[in-house]
Amino acid sequence: MDLLLRNVRPLGGAAVDVEVRGGRIHALHPGLDPGSMPVIDGAGALLLPGLIESHTHLDKTLWGLPWYVNEVGPRLEDRIANERRFRADSGHDAGAQALKLAREFLAQGTTRLRTHVDIDTEAGLKHLHGVLATRAALRDEMEIQLVAFPQSGLLARPGTAELLDEALRLGADVLGGLDPQAIDGDAAASLDLLFAIATKHGKPIDIHLHEGGEEGARTLDLLLDRTQALGFAGRVAVSHCFCLGDVAFARRAQLLERMARLQVAIITTGTASRPVPPLKECVQAGVLVAAGNDGIRDAWTPYGRPDMLERAMLLGLRNNLRRDDEIALAFDAVTSAAACACGFSDYGLAVGCRADFVLVEAQNIAEAVVARPPRRLVVSLAKVVAQNPATIEGSTTGA
Amino acid sequence: MDLLLRNVRPLGGAAVDVEVRGGRIHALHPGLDPGSMPVIDGAGALLLPGLIESHTHLDKTLWGLPWYVNEVGPRLEDRIANERRFRADSGHDAGAQALKLAREFLAQGTTRLRTHVDIDTEAGLKHLHGVLATRAALRDEMEIQLVAFPQSGLLARPGTAELLDEALRLGADVLGGLDPQAIDGDAAASLDLLFAIATKHGKPIDIHLHEGGEEGARTLDLLLDRTQALGFAGRVAVSHCFCLGDVAFARRAQLLERMARLQVAIITTGTASRPVPPLKECVQAGVLVAAGNDGIRDAWTPYGRPDMLERAMLLGLRNNLRRDDEIALAFDAVTSAAACACGFSDYGLAVGCRADFVLVEAQNIAEAVVARPPRRLVVSLAKVVAQNPATIEGSTTGA
Ligand SMILES: [Zn+2]
Ligand SMILES: [Zn+2]
Repeated sequence: MDLLLRNVRPLGGAAVDVEVRGGRIHALHPGLDPGSMPVIDGAGALLLPGLIESHTHLDKTLWGLPWYVNEVGPRLEDRIANERRFRADSGHDAGAQALKLAREFLAQGTTRLRTHVDIDTEAGLKHLHGVLATRAALRDEMEIQLVAFPQSGLLARPGTAELLDEALRLGADVLGGLDPQAIDGDAAASLDLLFAIATKHGKPIDIHLHEGGEEGARTLDLLLDRTQALGFAGRVAVSHCFCLGDVAFARRAQLLERMARLQVAIITTGTASRPVPPLKECVQAGVLVAAGNDGIRDAWTPYGRPDMLERAMLLGLRNNLRRDDEIALAFDAVTSAAACACGFSDYGLAVGCRADFVLVEAQNIAEAVVARPPRRLVVSLAKVVAQNPATIEGSTTGA
Repeated sequence: MDLLLRNVRPLGGAAVDVEVRGGRIHALHPGLDPGSMPVIDGAGALLLPGLIESHTHLDKTLWGLPWYVNEVGPRLEDRIANERRFRADSGHDAGAQALKLAREFLAQGTTRLRTHVDIDTEAGLKHLHGVLATRAALRDEMEIQLVAFPQSGLLARPGTAELLDEALRLGADVLGGLDPQAIDGDAAASLDLLFAIATKHGKPIDIHLHEGGEEGARTLDLLLDRTQALGFAGRVAVSHCFCLGDVAFARRAQLLERMARLQVAIITTGTASRPVPPLKECVQAGVLVAAGNDGIRDAWTPYGRPDMLERAMLLGLRNNLRRDDEIALAFDAVTSAAACACGFSDYGLAVGCRADFVLVEAQNIAEAVVARPPRRLVVSLAKVVAQNPATIEGSTTGA
């Protein structure tokens, strides 16, 4: 699988050739000698590292199925119940659906991905088994992290803790959680149990925190207390973390300072319809911010596309990032910062990094984010997984 | 230019054939006899009316030019000054740029479009002449409304009123305005002058109102007073109208009630980064809401794509529209409601309407909005202006 990619501009810099050898980027330099390696002509296009999806739900997606007419009520509880009902009625095949969407992610340049997988006392580990099979099927093409996610609550659903325990034993990489106060009704007790399970398995935590305002901030404080006391620094991510969007500046600054110190990452979608963690402020406070789509075309939401450049654009729109140097922050959230937040190793476009990259026709990072051009070439795990030379020609519209 | 379009589903309804004759939709029925007309096979795809862009700035766009590195300061004044400087330095050709972007709009199914054109005492009517030429060049392919827009203020820049007067004389369709309080410093006096110019020419008004909170609400009240007193009901649109996003519910209800009564329309972008008029609440109050991109890839913002399905999606994301019947409201804002708000006539998919339509591969309106599929066929002014049969096959991804 060695190859030489000629004439590409890493992150918009000067043109170089990229030599892939032994699964890694072996050299990055103009005028490399291909020897007997296959050569791909990059035609001066923009080279990006493999994109990273930090938060999705592959097991829920209805991607590729007939349109799901959404008639769901507005409350979180409505949506949880609706989905449970829908899955029971439709015989939803989480593994097959996950595979379809993961492949589409890959075609759009996402080479690493973290997905939450529903675990509850009704479905048990059915979805987990499905997504584990998907991960195995794609093992040579992309890297998938599984989060064991208690979608119906932890304390709220006795029996769930045991299932999470079993999920981690079976190969889930990360322990998930959900609104310890709003759903479980007792943030301290819920978090104690969550950290106990994670400690037992030596696994990191990635918790959904939808709780807003001071309710969410109190839960976040309790989470940070445990992160510190139990030695989880650098191994906790908070998904959504909406509360950071609607507490006062001073309170946010205090929380961000603790998060930075404990290396607790934020994973955001840049939701347009409610307050979200302000990207620049979080980054300036030294907090890692990664981005994800959350669900894509499922019983919760019809929106989303497995394109992390589009997600970066939405993050840019949400945070009013207009300057090129600001848009770079949104790009970081689907590349480098995401790798740090999720613990994906050997990441980047430097010599020695794993050979994961994407080629697009754009002048620089900012254009790639706003135009979301077709992916000309995707290399993942040193393998060409998508190639479309036609996309290099003509239009800069990305349409 | 007569033709028969076979087997299409108008707005997701049952399949019909569409007969175009004399520039209009002559019949809509299954099993029509083509006689000697050319026939296009719709293959059961979704038929939409021509899309409508209600608010853009064709004259500002840098579409198709080398990437503009944005290093602009954050204030409105910074951006206005930056653009004026950039245009002077770069020799920006408003007409040529407008033509490029308008053609791209058309290729993406936008058959009618309202564009604001900068008029100020420095550039004079240069941009207007350019966009008038663009309109003339595209006269047989799409319908373009020009708004004479005082980008640098009206009272704030003596000499501008005379230029606006001249612009309307030269063929601008609508009189534009800008923040009568925040920019001109005297909302009542500024609006009096604006309505006087519009009255003289018998032209409608479309004013940019960025003013937030109660400042904007007071300006809006003054605007509604004049709309009522001077007989402008049904001939005024307020673009952005951000104040409706951040006044209290009761104050908003009062303003919306007056707007509904005076048929004053809202034109919104669904900006993700600041409060905006809440779509459902406005529609429920009986106010027309249309959508636009505002500037696309210009010295103000790098974002935007001349695709009104994408704009509808952004409106849906901003307003958290998840149900199919809610997404239909976002679709209305780029179709029927937009036609009413801008006064585009003979609009729609009924017999007798002008033959403007778009064919996409989607099951229904909601899918068209979230997936933004490639445009398979665009007919505008009864003319096939884009055709791409390949897009009917395969992928429902819209990628
Ligand atoms: Zn989630
Ligand atoms: Zn505008």
